[in-house]
Amino acid sequence: MQGQAQQQAYDRGITIFSPDGRLYQVEYAREAVKRGTASIGIRTKDGVVLAADKRSRSPLMEPTSVEKIHKADDHAGIASAGHVADARQLIDFARRQAQVNRLRYSEPIGIEALTKEVTDHIQQYTQVGGARPFGVALLIGGIEDGEPRLYETDPSGTPYEWKAVSIGANRGDLQEYLEENYTDADELDLDDGIALALRALASTNEDTLEPAGVDVGTVDTESESFHELDNDEIETHLADLDLLPTEGDEDESDEE
Amino acid sequence: MQGQAQQQAYDRGITIFSPDGRLYQVEYAREAVKRGTASIGIRTKDGVVLAADKRSRSPLMEPTSVEKIHKADDHAGIASAGHVADARQLIDFARRQAQVNRLRYSEPIGIEALTKEVTDHIQQYTQVGGARPFGVALLIGGIEDGEPRLYETDPSGTPYEWKAVSIGANRGDLQEYLEENYTDADELDLDDGIALALRALASTNEDTLEPAGVDVGTVDTESESFHELDNDEIETHLADLDLLPTEGDEDESDEE
Amino acid sequence: MQGQAQQQAYDRGITIFSPDGRLYQVEYAREAVKRGTASIGIRTKDGVVLAADKRSRSPLMEPTSVEKIHKADDHAGIASAGHVADARQLIDFARRQAQVNRLRYSEPIGIEALTKEVTDHIQQYTQVGGARPFGVALLIGGIEDGEPRLYETDPSGTPYEWKAVSIGANRGDLQEYLEENYTDADELDLDDGIALALRALASTNEDTLEPAGVDVGTVDTESESFHELDNDEIETHLADLDLLPTEGDEDESDEE
Amino acid sequence: MQGQAQQQAYDRGITIFSPDGRLYQVEYAREAVKRGTASIGIRTKDGVVLAADKRSRSPLMEPTSVEKIHKADDHAGIASAGHVADARQLIDFARRQAQVNRLRYSEPIGIEALTKEVTDHIQQYTQVGGARPFGVALLIGGIEDGEPRLYETDPSGTPYEWKAVSIGANRGDLQEYLEENYTDADELDLDDGIALALRALASTNEDTLEPAGVDVGTVDTESESFHELDNDEIETHLADLDLLPTEGDEDESDEE
Amino acid sequence: MQGQAQQQAYDRGITIFSPDGRLYQVEYAREAVKRGTASIGIRTKDGVVLAADKRSRSPLMEPTSVEKIHKADDHAGIASAGHVADARQLIDFARRQAQVNRLRYSEPIGIEALTKEVTDHIQQYTQVGGARPFGVALLIGGIEDGEPRLYETDPSGTPYEWKAVSIGANRGDLQEYLEENYTDADELDLDDGIALALRALASTNEDTLEPAGVDVGTVDTESESFHELDNDEIETHLADLDLLPTEGDEDESDEE
Amino acid sequence: MQGQAQQQAYDRGITIFSPDGRLYQVEYAREAVKRGTASIGIRTKDGVVLAADKRSRSPLMEPTSVEKIHKADDHAGIASAGHVADARQLIDFARRQAQVNRLRYSEPIGIEALTKEVTDHIQQYTQVGGARPFGVALLIGGIEDGEPRLYETDPSGTPYEWKAVSIGANRGDLQEYLEENYTDADELDLDDGIALALRALASTNEDTLEPAGVDVGTVDTESESFHELDNDEIETHLADLDLLPTEGDEDESDEE
Amino acid sequence: MQGQAQQQAYDRGITIFSPDGRLYQVEYAREAVKRGTASIGIRTKDGVVLAADKRSRSPLMEPTSVEKIHKADDHAGIASAGHVADARQLIDFARRQAQVNRLRYSEPIGIEALTKEVTDHIQQYTQVGGARPFGVALLIGGIEDGEPRLYETDPSGTPYEWKAVSIGANRGDLQEYLEENYTDADELDLDDGIALALRALASTNEDTLEPAGVDVGTVDTESESFHELDNDEIETHLADLDLLPTEGDEDESDEE
Repeated sequence: MQGQAQQQAYDRGITIFSPDGRLYQVEYAREAVKRGTASIGIRTKDGVVLAADKRSRSPLMEPTSVEKIHKADDHAGIASAGHVADARQLIDFARRQAQVNRLRYSEPIGIEALTKEVTDHIQQYTQVGGARPFGVALLIGGIEDGEPRLYETDPSGTPYEWKAVSIGANRGDLQEYLEENYTDADELDLDDGIALALRALASTNEDTLEPAGVDVGTVDTESESFHELDNDEIETHLADLDLLPTEGDEDESDEE
Repeated sequence: MQGQAQQQAYDRGITIFSPDGRLYQVEYAREAVKRGTASIGIRTKDGVVLAADKRSRSPLMEPTSVEKIHKADDHAGIASAGHVADARQLIDFARRQAQVNRLRYSEPIGIEALTKEVTDHIQQYTQVGGARPFGVALLIGGIEDGEPRLYETDPSGTPYEWKAVSIGANRGDLQEYLEENYTDADELDLDDGIALALRALASTNEDTLEPAGVDVGTVDTESESFHELDNDEIETHLADLDLLPTEGDEDESDEE
Repeated sequence: MQGQAQQQAYDRGITIFSPDGRLYQVEYAREAVKRGTASIGIRTKDGVVLAADKRSRSPLMEPTSVEKIHKADDHAGIASAGHVADARQLIDFARRQAQVNRLRYSEPIGIEALTKEVTDHIQQYTQVGGARPFGVALLIGGIEDGEPRLYETDPSGTPYEWKAVSIGANRGDLQEYLEENYTDADELDLDDGIALALRALASTNEDTLEPAGVDVGTVDTESESFHELDNDEIETHLADLDLLPTEGDEDESDEE
Repeated sequence: MQGQAQQQAYDRGITIFSPDGRLYQVEYAREAVKRGTASIGIRTKDGVVLAADKRSRSPLMEPTSVEKIHKADDHAGIASAGHVADARQLIDFARRQAQVNRLRYSEPIGIEALTKEVTDHIQQYTQVGGARPFGVALLIGGIEDGEPRLYETDPSGTPYEWKAVSIGANRGDLQEYLEENYTDADELDLDDGIALALRALASTNEDTLEPAGVDVGTVDTESESFHELDNDEIETHLADLDLLPTEGDEDESDEE
Repeated sequence: MQGQAQQQAYDRGITIFSPDGRLYQVEYAREAVKRGTASIGIRTKDGVVLAADKRSRSPLMEPTSVEKIHKADDHAGIASAGHVADARQLIDFARRQAQVNRLRYSEPIGIEALTKEVTDHIQQYTQVGGARPFGVALLIGGIEDGEPRLYETDPSGTPYEWKAVSIGANRGDLQEYLEENYTDADELDLDDGIALALRALASTNEDTLEPAGVDVGTVDTESESFHELDNDEIETHLADLDLLPTEGDEDESDEE
Repeated sequence: MQGQAQQQAYDRGITIFSPDGRLYQVEYAREAVKRGTASIGIRTKDGVVLAADKRSRSPLMEPTSVEKIHKADDHAGIASAGHVADARQLIDFARRQAQVNRLRYSEPIGIEALTKEVTDHIQQYTQVGGARPFGVALLIGGIEDGEPRLYETDPSGTPYEWKAVSIGANRGDLQEYLEENYTDADELDLDDGIALALRALASTNEDTLEPAGVDVGTVDTESESFHELDNDEIETHLADLDLLPTEGDEDESDEE
Repeated sequence: MQGQAQQQAYDRGITIFSPDGRLYQVEYAREAVKRGTASIGIRTKDGVVLAADKRSRSPLMEPTSVEKIHKADDHAGIASAGHVADARQLIDFARRQAQVNRLRYSEPIGIEALTKEVTDHIQQYTQVGGARPFGVALLIGGIEDGEPRLYETDPSGTPYEWKAVSIGANRGDLQEYLEENYTDADELDLDDGIALALRALASTNEDTLEPAGVDVGTVDTESESFHELDNDEIETHLADLDLLPTEGDEDESDEE
């Protein structure tokens, strides 16, 4: 009861500290991330893999309209989890930052620099009044100076660099799966990365995935180009991995 | 009782997160959508069909004044459900975006691009303080690169692409009806689409519809022009489908 | 008790959604409309009739100072019900819009266009913070392209087109009266319209009306000019209709 | 108890609607008007009379410093009741409007136009946030096109035209007195008007008035000039009317 | 209990009306005035006297630093009671207004005009949000057109003209003392005025005053100059009046 | 309990009056001053002495980093007590005012003028919304026209001039000590002033002081220059006064 | 219970004083600092050492992405503890200040001046409304005029200079450890400083540290350059000090 009363006090206005030094609106925004379906990022020696669960809420919805993997620039992709409309804002922000960099310096923006532009933007919404935090986490992957890089942004505006990471629903289980199954980046090639990502996603879905229910994007060190796999490529991977489903079920939410 | 107290905390100020990561004002705006009469969109191989229940609250009200289907541009139409005055704001916004595109690029705006301009606008009202979200959902249909496209916008500012979709009252039943009766877009022609939409609307109204109580608009791939059916055309369709009513009843609300 | 507590939560700040998707401040503004005396609009084949109950609260008050029927432009009149001071703001706004149209396009503004300028203005006060909604409904009547048009605006900012409509006190009874007694517009001439409006107003007042207690204005298709009936004209109409009172009683309020 | 709780909800922020469609802050501002001593306006065939109870709270206070009757322009006077400091703001506003009119159009502002400038100004303070309504009512009297005119403004921003009217304390009794004793304006000359106003004010004070406790101003149709009666003139009127007191009592408040 | 709850509702935000038409923040500001030590103004036939109780809270405090009597312009002085820091703001404001008048019109500002500039400034802080009212009352005395004038300003922004007046602590007793002992201004010379002011102040202090505990300023009609009495002059007056104390006690507060 | 509830009402928003005319946020800011360690000012015939308790919270903290005595200009010093970060803002403000004065008038700013610039700045933060008051008191000492002057500023923005004064912790005891031991300024030379200040500070610390735990600054009439005593000078004074400690203990706070 | 109710009152709006003179939002921000892992600063005769616990929450997270030691300028480094995203804002602010100084004065900014620019910036967020305080503490170390300097900033905006200091988790224990083990700066060389910092960090971790779980940076007086130790250098130091772990455990938080 006390806990209930205490929380209410922090919900009303702008993002402020609780007596134990937490920012409740940011904590609640993390819950919005958990309500979204999972996205996974894997760094391999040949590039970065982004994969996402994009199960649609109706068979009549176009699977392509559930966008979880986005091109940020030629050499960079972004996967999201959480409040969809917020994700779109941040991805547009990231694209503009990448374009500005190309215009100013005639070169692609670094993945770390891009991530930090985004997290600085997110942080402003947690400190200055008159707006709520972004209810979304992003995985930003790409090639910087020939090397694959993979970053996470969270609703507090903190950047993290990862070898392999999961955001969104079932993060606990998925991250555990990745920790158990990820071997050193130097040993993984891009297909190994795709396989690990798909197996991880399937692990929370009775080890099956529908091709239309998954998005996969890669940025490899050779092409340094973002590539989003089409349905056939995904189906081939799933078939190879023996993950093709017999039947898929949907749930409805506006987080993805 | 606790649930009651908890909700009150989130109703007072700007749109903020609840402890479980939801945006209550956005959830409540969805309720405003449900209070409006239904609109339906159907994508066929020949074009897009928009249809709407526009039962008027008095026999003295001009049926044409209950606007549920709107022309957005030559090649695009919009159907709405929810708070009428809010719908008008968004439709005006969409029209201006379409005009700006024609002025800048001398070509019609893409249906996806148009939708995303609208959803970005909606999202702003869910994050920045000093205003409430829009209490309305839209169906945006039209022709893009010769192909029929059909999108939904919701009060969170999320865009969805659909083959067939319902917004507003009875969404659950209507969407189920569509899922059961929609066959592949390649098999449906425009008249099939109109028939499906009208049958769906009639399914929640004892299988009858008054001509003046329905709005139907189409954008076909041949003309690439928005066409709103007149009363006689609708009556012919309803007669063909054996949906003409014996008696219609009204209810009063300012959502449509 | 719960309902009481729940409502309080929505009364405090800006106009926000309740859990069932309603805008309480807009609902309450509708109550302000109901507190005002009735106004009625009738569309006939020869023009539009606006009539209003303007019973004054004291025999010493100048009847002309209770303004319920206003000229908006040469070809358009406005009747109001609700919070008087708010009505004056909207009517001034409408007049400026009409003037601007004449200046820009050298032609009278369309009645529909005029209505929608007003309703867009009203809507802003229901969505953006820092102000309350307008507590008034308007009837906007006039001639557009030679045809009589009659619109209603409500506190949500929704426009409706009517054949015959009542706003303000006793709307339920008056609208029912109109529905029972209105015949097709093609059969009514302007005097029939005036008669219907006066009989309707009298129906809630023991079938009597004082000339000084009624305002009547017309815009006919021939002159396309707003005309406000003087006391003698109204008395003649009332005498013809056998509605002249023996005694009238007043009530005091600042809604009209 | 419930009523108490309900009211509190509307007292906190800006001026908003209560569930029954009232604006509480405006209602409370009316109470501030009632806390002020009475002012009376009388329209006669020869001009307008403004009279006010200005009993001072101490024999050491200069009677002239309790200003209840003010010159607005050569041809117009204003009497006030309610919060004194607010009255001063509105009277200054009215004076500036009158001056602006003379500068722009080289003619005196109409009494109705002047009143409506003032009421529009008052209305803004009841709709837009960040300020409270004006706690004052005014009587604006003067000559327009050779005719005497008398208007009232209230805290909602509504203008009323009157033959004879009272604002402030004891409005109920005073207005009743005026209704019983006012004969048609065509029968009253200016001295009759002064007599009626003084008798009305005395009627709530045991039928006596101290000359220093009353302010009287007139604008007659011949001179078209505001004239404030001096102490001797008032004493002569009171003596003629047999209203001179034996003893006067004071009460202290900052409304007048 | 109810009164307690009711008051809380009006304490939170900007200055708003209570249900009985009072402005609580202004009422509370009056309490701040009462917490300050008394100031007295006396108008005589030869000029105006301002006197103030300035008992210091410590023998180590410089008596001159407790400023209660201030020069506003050559011909005008101001005495204050209440919140000291607020008084300084208003006195600076008054000085600037006086200077501006001299610059613009090359003549001293009228005492009434000066007072009303100050009260209009005070009123703004009671109506527009974002600031609190001034917690101070002023006595403004000086010579205008050869005549002595004495005004009071209060926290509501109301100006009053007085023959003799007290503000601050013990106002009730002191004003009663003045009413009993003030004879007509035509009979009082400046020294009589000083004597009355000092006797009044002493009347609430066991009929004794320390020279350093009193401030006295005068503006006489002959010099038309503000003159602040020095310690010796005050001591002589007190000795003449037999008011010199044996022992004085202090109390600590930041109102004076 | 009632007192508790009552106080909460005044804590929420901007600085407003309580029913008894106090400004709670200002009262609370005074508590912040009391939480800081003591500072003392002494005026002597040869100049002003500022001394401060600057006991550090850890032996590893640099004593010089606890700044309690600051140079404001060549001829003026400032001692502070209360919230350290707020003190820094006010001292910077004072320095800028002093510099501006030198630039504009080519002469040092008067100590009284400097003090009043600072208190006017402080007052603004107690009246205008959107910020809290400053939680700090200052002693401003220096030479003006060859004479030593010593002022205090408090969180309400009131200036006081003193012969000898204490701010911060133990003000009651320290001020009592000063009142008992301060002899007339004409009898004290600068070393007497330093001795009095150090003895006063030691009086609340078992009559001992560590050299590193005290700051002493002087402005003498001969040099008209601010001089901060170094550790050796202080130690010599303390040794002369027999106040050197055997052991000192620290306490931790961010007020000083 | 009372304490609970009391605290809630101060959590809602801007940073305001509590009745005992504390700024609760600042106190809560200090709790955010304590939630972060520890950072330590040591001043030696040869330079400044900054060291930080940067234990990562997952073996898949790149240790380099948990940034606790940052270069501020060539001659200055910063260690942080608390809310990571806030730290990034302050460090960017510090870097810009350092750059501006180089541009304006063509010389490195002083460490004290740099610190005070940062603390002034922090203070603004504790006094002016519309934003929350920064939930982070910094250690700013570098060389100024050839001398090593070490400062701390806290969430109130207070600067402190230290010989050795700890911020973040376990501050009590770590500061006690430093006080017991720090000998005079003149006796410590840089390696002694690194050893002391690492031993202190290990003291709360069962006397072991993983090389990847520690950040160490130095600025020495000879090079006057910030140097961040690489993994091998740290491992060598840890091996020398016999602090290499057998097993490390992680905990998850977004403070570091």
